[in-house]
Amino acid sequence: MKKNCIVAQSGGPTVAINASLGGVIDGVIKSSKYDKIYGAIHGIQGVFKQEFLDLTESSDEFIDKLTKTPAMYLGSCRYKLPDIEENIQAYKDIFSVFESMNIGAFFYIGGNDSMDTVAKLAKYAESIGSDIKIAGVPKTIDNDLIETDHTPGFGSAAKYIAASVREMAYDTYIYDVNSVLIIEIMGRDAGWLTAASALARNEFSNAPHLIYLPEVAFDKETFISDIEKLMPTTKNIIIAVSEGIRDKDGNYISATTAAADKFGHAQLSGTGKCLELLVKERLGVKVRSVEINVLQRCAGHMASATDLKESFELGSMAVSLTESGNTGFMTTLTRTNSTPYEYSIASVPVSKVANQAKEVPTNWINASGNDVTKDMIDYIAPLIEGEVAGDYINGMVNYLDISHLVK
Amino acid sequence: MKKNCIVAQSGGPTVAINASLGGVIDGVIKSSKYDKIYGAIHGIQGVFKQEFLDLTESSDEFIDKLTKTPAMYLGSCRYKLPDIEENIQAYKDIFSVFESMNIGAFFYIGGNDSMDTVAKLAKYAESIGSDIKIAGVPKTIDNDLIETDHTPGFGSAAKYIAASVREMAYDTYIYDVNSVLIIEIMGRDAGWLTAASALARNEFSNAPHLIYLPEVAFDKETFISDIEKLMPTTKNIIIAVSEGIRDKDGNYISATTAAADKFGHAQLSGTGKCLELLVKERLGVKVRSVEINVLQRCAGHMASATDLKESFELGSMAVSLTESGNTGFMTTLTRTNSTPYEYSIASVPVSKVANQAKEVPTNWINASGNDVTKDMIDYIAPLIEGEVAGDYINGMVNYLDISHLVK
Repeated sequence: MKKNCIVAQSGGPTVAINASLGGVIDGVIKSSKYDKIYGAIHGIQGVFKQEFLDLTESSDEFIDKLTKTPAMYLGSCRYKLPDIEENIQAYKDIFSVFESMNIGAFFYIGGNDSMDTVAKLAKYAESIGSDIKIAGVPKTIDNDLIETDHTPGFGSAAKYIAASVREMAYDTYIYDVNSVLIIEIMGRDAGWLTAASALARNEFSNAPHLIYLPEVAFDKETFISDIEKLMPTTKNIIIAVSEGIRDKDGNYISATTAAADKFGHAQLSGTGKCLELLVKERLGVKVRSVEINVLQRCAGHMASATDLKESFELGSMAVSLTESGNTGFMTTLTRTNSTPYEYSIASVPVSKVANQAKEVPTNWINASGNDVTKDMIDYIAPLIEGEVAGDYINGMVNYLDISHLVK
Repeated sequence: MKKNCIVAQSGGPTVAINASLGGVIDGVIKSSKYDKIYGAIHGIQGVFKQEFLDLTESSDEFIDKLTKTPAMYLGSCRYKLPDIEENIQAYKDIFSVFESMNIGAFFYIGGNDSMDTVAKLAKYAESIGSDIKIAGVPKTIDNDLIETDHTPGFGSAAKYIAASVREMAYDTYIYDVNSVLIIEIMGRDAGWLTAASALARNEFSNAPHLIYLPEVAFDKETFISDIEKLMPTTKNIIIAVSEGIRDKDGNYISATTAAADKFGHAQLSGTGKCLELLVKERLGVKVRSVEINVLQRCAGHMASATDLKESFELGSMAVSLTESGNTGFMTTLTRTNSTPYEYSIASVPVSKVANQAKEVPTNWINASGNDVTKDMIDYIAPLIEGEVAGDYINGMVNYLDISHLVK
């Protein structure tokens, strides 16, 4: 008798995580070993609660539309499995559901925390001699998973950020007055997303003129000095800054700039706003700060075709690998050639990935700590390639119906 | 001898103002009466400084690309002409340049303030018996010009806002916890842009569930009560709010909420952030605020094809009208049919438009003051219709070279 499969999504949304879901569904439907594919609602919690959608009859049209729909079709959770020693009952409950549904493989699409869940479930399966395969499929806009060249969702977020910064540069260049624009980009610990702003540059615009990543200790005097040096030659100075920049003592700048301290409201102001106040106070120049909002992780209308394709393949490869007996792995991307960009998909033991974070290499940041190098730009450039033709109805992108998540 | 023309752009950028510029250029090139078309750099200041681009040899390809390029190809200014009585020299200077360049018509593309300039120049021309025609072409994302059904740039901004709110709703629905998302939208005095968020709704999502416009006095107790009423039935509450909402005494909410007062930093926090703190303090629910940033006025990648087409036609019509002897007018859009949407282009004396502002009609806001009516949605819906195929190179939208503005 053929076994069934369960797939679930976890962590923060991305533009590409539904593409990986599409890959898993497609892989199971085409599999000769598996029968049904069930989607658990709200991550692993949907397994506990036995809330499933039967996705086995998904049409090609459904899978195509799913692939282009941002955020998470199955919903998400922020639940971290307890250690086995701490609460074995949680594991017993999950595997009891698995057994009752005749499950042969469980696929979890997510980031660091989700890979921790995959590792724990695989370890438990081994400990009880279960042959249920446990597989991880990576995703995170932050690009901070190790053992993979990059992560699904990062390319689309990078494309959105680069496009936004370029459009804001066009918006900024129109006035014949000196100005500073500070653009705050997501990334609490890793600067990958902020680095992507460098792709906004072209033959006549060097915006962003300064880029600050959390990997470099931020010094506000150096920051002011960096701007002052540019001012004589650059009318409109555009700056990309990571939300997570910290001073040499590790304190977030959003909580420590002089301007912020003066009013005593660190908890209210983002990094960009703090730097805006600092520039206004110190340089008296026209200044504005903009926080690129949550669209950087959910703007399906600016998806990278490369990202969606790879994400889909990482999902279907996970199915293939379980079919051939693998478990406790995360599928990975390897860059096999730089120019032209080529990649292959493989896997690593998930225990190598869980709870680790990939930082930007130091030598991909310039010596002054206010820009990224050509290596960084060459690394990101192929990941934003390709556009996805949206399905528009009445002027609006027509994504998949997610009414099962709307309560 | 054929006369020449000058065109300039003024005020804030939009996605469609270059389409109107394209219409003017195209109109002059095809005109049998006019010879050259010069673009003044940085609005009327480019006339004073005699900084011009000769646009006469523009190819169809150039005009097409110009039409799809956001922000302002000729740059902008915020210069308001003094009254004639106050400083007649400014007028003498402008017309001296006009005469020296054998100008037959001057086209100014802009909003309220720019139409004031058009009115003043036309009045001066009349007073000196000049036959130089002075024409206004409307633009403003705010949609607050009177005598025209809507303004160029509004449709694209509305499309961007509706798309963004829908994508943020997808982002929000994934978690199985109660939450409030507050989305702040531009519009200091008029609520048109915030109203456009209602187009994000579809058959299964009523987000934004609450909409607050500056036309209704904002009361924070009512606001909290509106949310409390929704909470039992709506897991994820999404709220669209205009940056310009004010209390019954006319004070901006960004400066008056209790949460803001407590920390004494009204100057730092936007409206959305103030309401976020208020909700957190009063309801203790998971809450986030997002400010839709300047992309609402410059996201060329989300342009409304309807908006660009109309904007182009308003520009070329301005040329035709001057050819037939008209001056001191602004071209206008009239909605001649609702379903299907049809429009015609005409003009009004610019003196009727200058320094006036169109507010949202009271009966397009619901009785509770927390939503817009079907009339409003029906009004905006056709304006966001149609997508513009972007020209992408290396994964990035490839807009027109604006190196002449980059210093």
